[in-house]
Amino acid sequence: MKVKLVLLCVLTFVFASIYNDLAVAQATDALPSWNDGKTKQSILAFVEKVTTKGSPDFVPPAERIATFDNDGTLWAEQPMYFQLFFALDRVKALAPKHPEWNGKEPFASLLKGEVKSALAGGDKAILEIVMATHAGMTTEEFQQTVKDWLASAKHPKSGRLYTEMVYQPMIELLAYLRSQGFKTFIVSGGGVEFMRPWTERVYGIPPEQVVGSSIKTKFELRNGKPAIVRLPEINFIDDKAGKPVGINQYIGRRPIAAFGNSDGDLQMLQWTTAGAGARFALIVHHTDAEREWAYDRKSLVGRLDKALEEAKAKGWTVVDMKNDWKTVFTFEKK
Amino acid sequence: MKVKLVLLCVLTFVFASIYNDLAVAQATDALPSWNDGKTKQSILAFVEKVTTKGSPDFVPPAERIATFDNDGTLWAEQPMYFQLFFALDRVKALAPKHPEWNGKEPFASLLKGEVKSALAGGDKAILEIVMATHAGMTTEEFQQTVKDWLASAKHPKSGRLYTEMVYQPMIELLAYLRSQGFKTFIVSGGGVEFMRPWTERVYGIPPEQVVGSSIKTKFELRNGKPAIVRLPEINFIDDKAGKPVGINQYIGRRPIAAFGNSDGDLQMLQWTTAGAGARFALIVHHTDAEREWAYDRKSLVGRLDKALEEAKAKGWTVVDMKNDWKTVFTFEKK
Repeated sequence: MKVKLVLLCVLTFVFASIYNDLAVAQATDALPSWNDGKTKQSILAFVEKVTTKGSPDFVPPAERIATFDNDGTLWAEQPMYFQLFFALDRVKALAPKHPEWNGKEPFASLLKGEVKSALAGGDKAILEIVMATHAGMTTEEFQQTVKDWLASAKHPKSGRLYTEMVYQPMIELLAYLRSQGFKTFIVSGGGVEFMRPWTERVYGIPPEQVVGSSIKTKFELRNGKPAIVRLPEINFIDDKAGKPVGINQYIGRRPIAAFGNSDGDLQMLQWTTAGAGARFALIVHHTDAEREWAYDRKSLVGRLDKALEEAKAKGWTVVDMKNDWKTVFTFEKK
Repeated sequence: MKVKLVLLCVLTFVFASIYNDLAVAQATDALPSWNDGKTKQSILAFVEKVTTKGSPDFVPPAERIATFDNDGTLWAEQPMYFQLFFALDRVKALAPKHPEWNGKEPFASLLKGEVKSALAGGDKAILEIVMATHAGMTTEEFQQTVKDWLASAKHPKSGRLYTEMVYQPMIELLAYLRSQGFKTFIVSGGGVEFMRPWTERVYGIPPEQVVGSSIKTKFELRNGKPAIVRLPEINFIDDKAGKPVGINQYIGRRPIAAFGNSDGDLQMLQWTTAGAGARFALIVHHTDAEREWAYDRKSLVGRLDKALEEAKAKGWTVVDMKNDWKTVFTFEKK
């Protein structure tokens, strides 16, 4: 009996070791949509050093905060921000209730299908469109509208649902970081209530880990029933210097890793990398005109200019989408 | 060999079952500082029904959001909010750099030790004290000041550190809820950056799960080094109708359970209980003049009047501190 038990123990140990080795092997292949090379290697090397106990760069799990921009970093942002497509569709849907829009810009142009003329009014025009379509309802009504739109609206180029226009390599990266004890957050210039209804399903990021721009809201009792109503007034713009402010305000802890794709992310990357200990900054450079889009310094959407310079100067990781990614969109995997 | 292996399996199963039963027995005694009775029972019954698979009230772990007020709910708030003691101590510490304060209220009275005269100026006086002591430095400098103060300042009545003036039964409740898959948040009228430096250590609640009042901040490069600077301007007041607004803004998901102690928590409890499915609302009623303090409808700090009425009308759980709690403060356990 004794010998057999010892044998059993030895076997258990052997199988456990094999399983362990397999787990390690699996971990090193946690990013199958990333081509082997220095980009992928820089990610793996950083994660290894901050998660290895006894390493001088070890970071306790509670402090493994990673922040991700959304537009252009986790999902596409061309030919324009997807939230803007949502707003334009809402203008059309709401038009019957707003006959005055036929004589009022930017709505009149929009309703005639002249998007460029409508947006010629710049930030002021966009703000008017956003307020007309994002305010005036309860938060729950707005969430439902977002969900309904995402379930049916299609991207003009790919014909895919917008939630399919997410980057497979980044989905893998999010999951990999979480498997290594990281807590993943979105820190986006997009509207926080536009993102929260779907980030958990699509990215595995729950609503409470989404930081974004917001309009003001108000609590009130409607016929005795509590409601939170969305007001046509900006509360917070989570872009550029607003990103570290948003991180501090919502997360309250400096990330050790940050991921972006444009000059709007520069301050987040600066704030992240200026902390003590090992830090990681990554920029997704859109270099693939065939599978996605190629744009940087001169693009109106997602301009990447100053941040690209700083990335070079400081040795941040820059993803060359064309060469570093085996797959771009999740729908290509299906 | 076969028989022995079967025996081993059976034994493993038996021990696993015993261990499991022990775990269950342990779970039912997860609140040892709560006296048995309907208050404790209401908590256990709620948790059981939302965590039991197949129960009509089952709630998936991701949606088990529980929000806690801080002052008067997790730690004491008498004879005045602890953050106000901090501010007064800061006025004294900063006075040498502000000779003009000797001729300027509310600072002049404060520096003469006349706290009541200083606070006679009401909200305006308090706001001036807060801005003079909470703004003008970087967020990291402020965090350090809070930590230093908490490490040495003593409560005027108990002579204990403020972080020892926390309620043992609530600490157990937080841990119990987390053990049952809940995510615990603080939603407090107190300053968010005053709480975040210590909530993880004291309550097990990380910075990113603390919602509170805040002043505005600004990102800037100081000699090329990124810093977030605290500005003397209110950003958000997380009290009364501000609490559901704060919950929506920071957490983005409606809690299924909320815990408070004053009229400042009423709207949070209304918002929480108005959601679909099983909901839980609890109010800590300060009824123990001997071990803590006894106050409610007429107290200037932590007034509990309207919320007590609504609790009765709606059947919310009301903790009678004197009778429901075996132990009040954590330091009594030591």
